[in-house]
Amino acid sequence: MAILALDIGATKFAAGVVDAAGAVTAVRRAPVPVRGVWDVCRELLVSVADGAAVSAIGIGSAGPVDEPAGITKPLNIPEWRDGFPIVAAVRELFPGAAVRFAMDGACLALAEQHSGALHGVRNALAMTVSSGIGGGIIVDGRVSLGRTGNAGHIGHIVVPGWDVRCACGGVGCVEAVASGMSSARWAREQGWPGETGAELARAARAGDPIAVSALARAGTALGQAISSAAALLDIDTVVIGGGFAHSGEPLWGPLRVAVDRHAGLGFLRGLRVELSRLDEGATLVGAAVLACSDTDPFATATSGFPEE
Amino acid sequence: MAILALDIGATKFAAGVVDAAGAVTAVRRAPVPVRGVWDVCRELLVSVADGAAVSAIGIGSAGPVDEPAGITKPLNIPEWRDGFPIVAAVRELFPGAAVRFAMDGACLALAEQHSGALHGVRNALAMTVSSGIGGGIIVDGRVSLGRTGNAGHIGHIVVPGWDVRCACGGVGCVEAVASGMSSARWAREQGWPGETGAELARAARAGDPIAVSALARAGTALGQAISSAAALLDIDTVVIGGGFAHSGEPLWGPLRVAVDRHAGLGFLRGLRVELSRLDEGATLVGAAVLACSDTDPFATATSGFPEE
Repeated sequence: MAILALDIGATKFAAGVVDAAGAVTAVRRAPVPVRGVWDVCRELLVSVADGAAVSAIGIGSAGPVDEPAGITKPLNIPEWRDGFPIVAAVRELFPGAAVRFAMDGACLALAEQHSGALHGVRNALAMTVSSGIGGGIIVDGRVSLGRTGNAGHIGHIVVPGWDVRCACGGVGCVEAVASGMSSARWAREQGWPGETGAELARAARAGDPIAVSALARAGTALGQAISSAAALLDIDTVVIGGGFAHSGEPLWGPLRVAVDRHAGLGFLRGLRVELSRLDEGATLVGAAVLACSDTDPFATATSGFPEE
Repeated sequence: MAILALDIGATKFAAGVVDAAGAVTAVRRAPVPVRGVWDVCRELLVSVADGAAVSAIGIGSAGPVDEPAGITKPLNIPEWRDGFPIVAAVRELFPGAAVRFAMDGACLALAEQHSGALHGVRNALAMTVSSGIGGGIIVDGRVSLGRTGNAGHIGHIVVPGWDVRCACGGVGCVEAVASGMSSARWAREQGWPGETGAELARAARAGDPIAVSALARAGTALGQAISSAAALLDIDTVVIGGGFAHSGEPLWGPLRVAVDRHAGLGFLRGLRVELSRLDEGATLVGAAVLACSDTDPFATATSGFPEE
C-alpha cells in the first residue's frame, strides 16, 4: 500500500510517494496545461503510484480552496478557477484511499512545523514569496484553516503607498506589489529590460538601480504586511520560502527596516523573520504530513468553552 | 461567595458582581488616575465585593498584556505602561480566589461569542473603535490568545495612504488614523474647532465638510484593515463596538466601500461587518465569562497533530 503526496501549484504539479519515515520520494513533476488540467494531474498520480494500491493521499493546492467541499479554485489556473472537485476526482481514481486536502499555505505551515523553523513554535506565520505570495498561520499551536480552508492568505493584506490592482479583484494587495512577478512587472514599467523575478534579483545584486528600487519596494511592502499580521496574531516567528525570497539583501534589508519601523508594540520586539530552510518541495512535505496524520492535524478542540 | 468581573480601560475602571445567570450586576466605575492607579482599582474592587468572600474574578485589561506572566502593560495608562502585576495584586487582595486575566479585546470576543453577534461563529473578528482601536479574534471556534495574550491587536494593522506616527512606536497603524481621538486630531489640524470623536460624528451628520472628510478617512482605513484581517484569517463576520463605531453613515458608508474595494477574494464575498449589539459593558461581560468558565476558554487542544 502506498501513501502519496500531491502539490497543485499555479504552474506545475508535483507528486511523490511518502516513505515509512515520512519523506517524499520518487517525486515527479508536470507543468499545468492550459486545458485538460485534470488529465495531466491524473496521469502524474497514476505514474507515481506505479501500480501500487493507494491507502492515503495528501493534497496541497494553490488557493483559494473550498476545503469543506473538497473543491480547489486556484486563481492562477484558469480552467479550475471557478472550482474543480479535486477530492472527488482523486477518490474516484484511488477508491478506498483516505484523501486529505488543504490549501498549499496550510501545507507549508505544517511542513515548517514538522521539519522546519516552526517546530514547536505555537504562534507563527509561514510564507512563500515567489511568482505569487501565500502562506499559512499557526495559532495557539495549530495550523489554522479558517472558515473555508483559506486562512493564511497573507498575499492579500493591503499595504500602504500603492494602488495596484490585484488578480484577486482587490486593490493594493501585497501580492500585487511584492511578488516576483509583480516586482518584475513594475521594473519593466520603469524601463528595466528583463523578464523574471530571478533575473531582477540578479540585476539588483549587480547594482542595477531600477532593480534595486524594485526589490526595496517589494521588501518594504512585505515588511509592512508582516508587521500587520504579527500585530493581529501575536506571533514571534515568520519564516519565508519561495524563489523570490532568495533575492538576498536587496530584498531583506528593506524588509527588516520596514518591520523595525512598523512593528512598534512591545510584544513584537524580537520578532524573528527568517528565510526557510525547506526547499521548493515544502508544500509536498506538508501534503505528506497531511496524508500520514492519524487524526486531522487541523482539528479543533471540542473541550473548553466555545460553542456551548 | 461572590464572583467578580473587572474591566481595566484606558480612562476608567469598571467592576461588578457576576450573578447566577452570568450577568454583571452592581457595576461601579472609577476614572483611572494619573498616579496611584492600583489604589483606585483596589478600592473599587473592595467596594464591589462589599464584604463577601470572592471565589473567582475575571479581569479584562487594555493592552498590551503579558498574559502568561499576569502582567498588564496598557499603552495609555502611563503608570502601568512598563508593567503592573495585576494578577498577583488581585490574588493578594482576594486570597484563594481563582484569578483569570486576558486582554480586553479577547474579553470582547468572548462576550460577542457568549451573547452577541458571534454566537456560534467559528472564525470572526470583534473590534472596538472608540478613543483607541482594539479587538479579539476567533479562530476555528476559539478566542485566540497568541503568544503573549495580545492576539487581536487590529488597531496596529498598517493601512495605506497615511504616514502617521502611532503611540505604539510604529507608523501608519489604523489606530493612529481611524480612532475617535485620531480622527478628531486630524480634523482639528484641518481647522475644525471641536474636541472629541462624538462631537466630530455629530458635526459630520450635520454636514460639516471637514468632519465628513475625517469620518470618510477613518471609515476607509477601517475597511482596509478589516479586509487585510479577513484575508489572513478567513473569517465571515466582523462585529464592531465602541463609541466612535456609532458615528453612523459618514463612517460606515466609506467603510463598506473600502471593504468592497479591497476584499476581492471569492471566499470573502458576503463578509458581514456589523455594529455590535453589546454596549460599553461588553468587556465586563467577557471578563464575567472568563470568571465563570470551568475550563480555560482559551485552552488549546491537546489531541491531534501539533507539538509532537
